[in-house]
Amino acid sequence: METVLKSAAKTVVIGADKPTVFIGERINPTGKKKLAAALVAGDLEVVRKEALAQVEVGADVLDVNVGAAGVDEVSLLPQALQLVMETVEVPVCIDTANVNALRAALSLHRELAPGGKPLINSVNGEEARMDDVLPLVKEYGAAVICLAMDDEGIPCTGEGRVAVVRRIVERADALGIPREDLIVDCLALTVGADPNAAVVTLDAIRGVKEEFGFNMTLGASNVSFGLPEREVINWAFLAMVAMAGVNCPIVDVAKVRPALLAADLLLGRDSFGMRYITAYKKRMKEAQQAQS
Amino acid sequence: METVLKSAAKTVVIGADKPTVFIGERINPTGKKKLAAALVAGDLEVVRKEALAQVEVGADVLDVNVGAAGVDEVSLLPQALQLVMETVEVPVCIDTANVNALRAALSLHRELAPGGKPLINSVNGEEARMDDVLPLVKEYGAAVICLAMDDEGIPCTGEGRVAVVRRIVERADALGIPREDLIVDCLALTVGADPNAAVVTLDAIRGVKEEFGFNMTLGASNVSFGLPEREVINWAFLAMVAMAGVNCPIVDVAKVRPALLAADLLLGRDSFGMRYITAYKKRMKEAQQAQS
Repeated sequence: METVLKSAAKTVVIGADKPTVFIGERINPTGKKKLAAALVAGDLEVVRKEALAQVEVGADVLDVNVGAAGVDEVSLLPQALQLVMETVEVPVCIDTANVNALRAALSLHRELAPGGKPLINSVNGEEARMDDVLPLVKEYGAAVICLAMDDEGIPCTGEGRVAVVRRIVERADALGIPREDLIVDCLALTVGADPNAAVVTLDAIRGVKEEFGFNMTLGASNVSFGLPEREVINWAFLAMVAMAGVNCPIVDVAKVRPALLAADLLLGRDSFGMRYITAYKKRMKEAQQAQS
Repeated sequence: METVLKSAAKTVVIGADKPTVFIGERINPTGKKKLAAALVAGDLEVVRKEALAQVEVGADVLDVNVGAAGVDEVSLLPQALQLVMETVEVPVCIDTANVNALRAALSLHRELAPGGKPLINSVNGEEARMDDVLPLVKEYGAAVICLAMDDEGIPCTGEGRVAVVRRIVERADALGIPREDLIVDCLALTVGADPNAAVVTLDAIRGVKEEFGFNMTLGASNVSFGLPEREVINWAFLAMVAMAGVNCPIVDVAKVRPALLAADLLLGRDSFGMRYITAYKKRMKEAQQAQS
């Protein structure tokens, strides 16, 4: 199953046999006080810089989220989206809990990139959220991330999460949304609080893969919250979830790209390591230039 | 299925729900000119140091291999084994292609650790090797590593490797060797030469796991031979093979233990990360002491 995302200039295809697609997570004020303050002040310079920096290190798609206390998203999200779309060429992932901001952003995207196809982040199994978001997915011909949670919260078993996905799929089917436009996020919680947390996520990923064959994303770094040397845990988890079926994770690209390029190489998606080796040489060259 | 290894003082249990057991690989002259030269000269001081150093960083079992051109293994392997057994308490893995050296080492092990249980590295599907090694496994009540290769070489498919394991199992069954005394090595070749190499290894591991439920080892670092930043690839591969079923890899413990402790934590074999966190604190303390 192949999911296609399109900006005005670029098409990105996400598929099981293709290399990992990197969705850059950094345009998001959650947990970032400076970015949040800038957004409240209407200052989008950081957004522009983060867009450039993430594409420079290999982001294939950029998540754009301006949701912070004190921000009018209906006004600011389209502004930020326009800036990103004018600054870089990659497709975008429109990330908001505010349905009016989502509609405004989708409308702007259609205007700036006629025939384009953005990704929406996200719908989940909550009734109200499905009612709000899925019709917009259909209307704008977008793709959408489906979170494996609903009005009851995040199910604590893999099968429970697959069941939520099943319900979202039924609703999307009923609206005539193509199956390939659904990307699933099975959700990662920290193993610091629940020793079984990663096992449940892996179970859910395998379950969704087997039943639907969907492309899958994940905000993987949550898994190590509260633990030391988080990168060591994150890298191991990314290798595991890549093997299980996650092929378009939302990540801090600069931090995790080498690990995921290695995973692609191991999973037979990078013949003779050309992509891995090219990325390595680029990093080495940049490190040398930074020294001299 | 649980494999038990025993020295005079320590018992190590390898099992699917237990944390990874680390077999230290460093007492082996392959590719180490200095160690090879010392062994040829009969100098075992490096062996003593490597034994101590590996246990210090968390090796649970030590592989002992003195096979180098110019070394009389029948004489030197028992000497090295005795030195290791007198220096550290962990169980040993007797690693030789020389059946007379193997017999001499097993005999010495019985003498030094009555009631002990060493691991033998290794048997494979070659007729002559099975004839030589399996009777010794039975006679000495040892456990043995079974390599998924035979007189035809290393099969290039996962199923081909599982078929080799099946033949070794039949022969071991016929001799009355308990199934739990067999540890399988599905073999890793470099993805630098064959883009499908790691996929085949992973297929074989899953196949053996499903059909036999055996505990599994792997010399995982081969996978990155000839490629840059080998640790990045090795860490990703270790996470994948740990998830697929490898639970007692032969490794350079100091280099890969953090990654495998992270894998254990993610796979639910380290409640609340106690082992991961303890190892982290120990490393930090040592780094501080090294600085001051």
